[in-house]
Amino acid sequence: MDTRILADLLGLVRKERPLVHHITNYVTVNDCANVTLCIGAAPVMAHAGEEVEEIVAVAGALVLNIGTLSPELVEGMLVAGKAANSHHVPVILDPVGAGATRLRTASAQKLISEVEISVLKGNAGEIGVVSGLGGDVRGVDSAGLREDPLTVARTCALQTGAVVVMSGPADLITDGKEVLLVRNGDPMMGRLSGTGCMAASLCGAFAAVTTDTVQASAAAMASFGRAGEIAGRDARGPYSFRTALLDALYRLTPDDLAENARIEQR
Amino acid sequence: MDTRILADLLGLVRKERPLVHHITNYVTVNDCANVTLCIGAAPVMAHAGEEVEEIVAVAGALVLNIGTLSPELVEGMLVAGKAANSHHVPVILDPVGAGATRLRTASAQKLISEVEISVLKGNAGEIGVVSGLGGDVRGVDSAGLREDPLTVARTCALQTGAVVVMSGPADLITDGKEVLLVRNGDPMMGRLSGTGCMAASLCGAFAAVTTDTVQASAAAMASFGRAGEIAGRDARGPYSFRTALLDALYRLTPDDLAENARIEQR
Amino acid sequence: MDTRILADLLGLVRKERPLVHHITNYVTVNDCANVTLCIGAAPVMAHAGEEVEEIVAVAGALVLNIGTLSPELVEGMLVAGKAANSHHVPVILDPVGAGATRLRTASAQKLISEVEISVLKGNAGEIGVVSGLGGDVRGVDSAGLREDPLTVARTCALQTGAVVVMSGPADLITDGKEVLLVRNGDPMMGRLSGTGCMAASLCGAFAAVTTDTVQASAAAMASFGRAGEIAGRDARGPYSFRTALLDALYRLTPDDLAENARIEQR
Repeated sequence: MDTRILADLLGLVRKERPLVHHITNYVTVNDCANVTLCIGAAPVMAHAGEEVEEIVAVAGALVLNIGTLSPELVEGMLVAGKAANSHHVPVILDPVGAGATRLRTASAQKLISEVEISVLKGNAGEIGVVSGLGGDVRGVDSAGLREDPLTVARTCALQTGAVVVMSGPADLITDGKEVLLVRNGDPMMGRLSGTGCMAASLCGAFAAVTTDTVQASAAAMASFGRAGEIAGRDARGPYSFRTALLDALYRLTPDDLAENARIEQR
Repeated sequence: MDTRILADLLGLVRKERPLVHHITNYVTVNDCANVTLCIGAAPVMAHAGEEVEEIVAVAGALVLNIGTLSPELVEGMLVAGKAANSHHVPVILDPVGAGATRLRTASAQKLISEVEISVLKGNAGEIGVVSGLGGDVRGVDSAGLREDPLTVARTCALQTGAVVVMSGPADLITDGKEVLLVRNGDPMMGRLSGTGCMAASLCGAFAAVTTDTVQASAAAMASFGRAGEIAGRDARGPYSFRTALLDALYRLTPDDLAENARIEQR
Repeated sequence: MDTRILADLLGLVRKERPLVHHITNYVTVNDCANVTLCIGAAPVMAHAGEEVEEIVAVAGALVLNIGTLSPELVEGMLVAGKAANSHHVPVILDPVGAGATRLRTASAQKLISEVEISVLKGNAGEIGVVSGLGGDVRGVDSAGLREDPLTVARTCALQTGAVVVMSGPADLITDGKEVLLVRNGDPMMGRLSGTGCMAASLCGAFAAVTTDTVQASAAAMASFGRAGEIAGRDARGPYSFRTALLDALYRLTPDDLAENARIEQR
């Protein structure tokens, strides 16, 4: 893949500064807001059913994350998601902890059945659960799949119509036909809370500036992974890593991304 | 303006350690708690209608921030705000996103009409919306005014009876008669989520130790801006800037503030 | 006390990676998630009554923290706490602000009367209030006791059946008979929001790997305090301290803990 395309998307995010509307968990929401700013987009967090339609109508993307869930929050997500669909605003869903509880599994399924999802980003276990092929989730961590990852991701993409982003040591991105592996990243990303959530925010920022959702997702994951590589050089632990990660994302240039994105086409 | 007055207020905050009661958003609440500690005051976050009256009765200031809003939260704010008024506890309102949705505009208006606000702090667009002269707000960012900032801020102050703090490259502070411009700060403050919220927390800390609300607001904005200048020297991006910002505020001395506060009287 | 026991517990946390279920406040929740990861355990935050029983059933510990309270949240805590008891999952309670409002005092009392608590961790004022011997709490800070700390902590332990961890310059740990003082720590821990909450998370991580709750609590407080000592060396303020604190906890070795834990038996 010509990584210059991804670099151009990064330039476009910074030029257009799309509004990324989040309905997300209260654990990592601050990092999500800041990662959105660092990539060059503008975050807005709003969950109340009374206002989400107005917000999403002027947004470039909607990010839904079920990390700290309540039935009321799902109602707000459904209202926002349907409004996003009617305004042709791409919806990113991060089904955090699907498989860990019935509430999470059912909420993810309800969102997928009632809202057209552009990007479905999760760890292997979560995507396995959503695909129906089975997956194990412990808390909010993947505990394994019952089929090979590619089959699971492809099946999930074909079933949902979404581009699936299965995060992992290599991130797998597929719309059911095209398959990309993004090999950027650093092991420390797995030792910091919120990196999955932040990746979904970035998917939103890039999905806002192109209709090619596979490329948008690849640009998001490669940018984040590349920032992780830079941050990993001097980090002494998860918090110095986090500081360096967000700073590196803020400083990431399109040229660096074009040169260092490691994308493999399957 | 004699900046020694502001320095003395900083000394007073550290001596009296006022309790600053926040009802605020879940995005930047951690930074608000820590900025309150760093300036030398004591934060407490409590939103339940069942307890806000007891908390505010012993507080030095009440900070209301509508950054992540729900109708229930506004109810808690109204209860707390009225209790604050009856106990002569100054109320700081940050109408985050007023103008972006009807819920936010109406909530800000309701709070202003039912609670006596001491300090109304917002970006230009938000203050414009609240003033009735018009303002544009995109998500939670200002997208411009229809009148000159000074006219808008003055009008807003005269209408609401509050000291208006319109944040920007220079912060404009007015009670409708006196006008101050605070020229401290660093461009990176606009690239970090939560700096506006943190400024409101600081306005609360200073409003707790003096009845001169214009001076309290100037001390808050100058202290924060001055810390930003120090932090901006070595920051490599928004997160190293944030670390340095809070550290610098913690280390800020009255003498440094007296020497470096850049306040212009209009 | 042979500090090698504590070191072995740290090794066990890292080996078993227990799931620590939190129902906690929205102010410091991100730090709680990350401190749990840094010590080597796995955090999951979930508060909805619809899912807490499923989560806690597979958890190694449950941490309840009333820092930002609402009556609905207490309901979720009661459901989770009772399920934890029936699954023999240890429950850690941090009665943040008990004594500051009737809602907080009553909520703490209700949780203690309806749920069997393994570890009750609070500042002196909070423990005093819960013990019934009296304590003063200003916002979320201790403002003093009416009896000596040891009497208060012992009384509270005997009344509740919990191991009491009274945080302070030296942390006092007692089950009503055995008494330990943990003398590790750094003054900066009192100037950063959330250190109390993080300590409770660590108590959860250690309580998940041993039935000796006094030792688990000592290991948690000594690990955290030791990380604070390391972090305090170069910190320039609360935020650089926080970064260094979490990094140091992540890098803390059992050998360092065995060598530097300062535990006094009374």
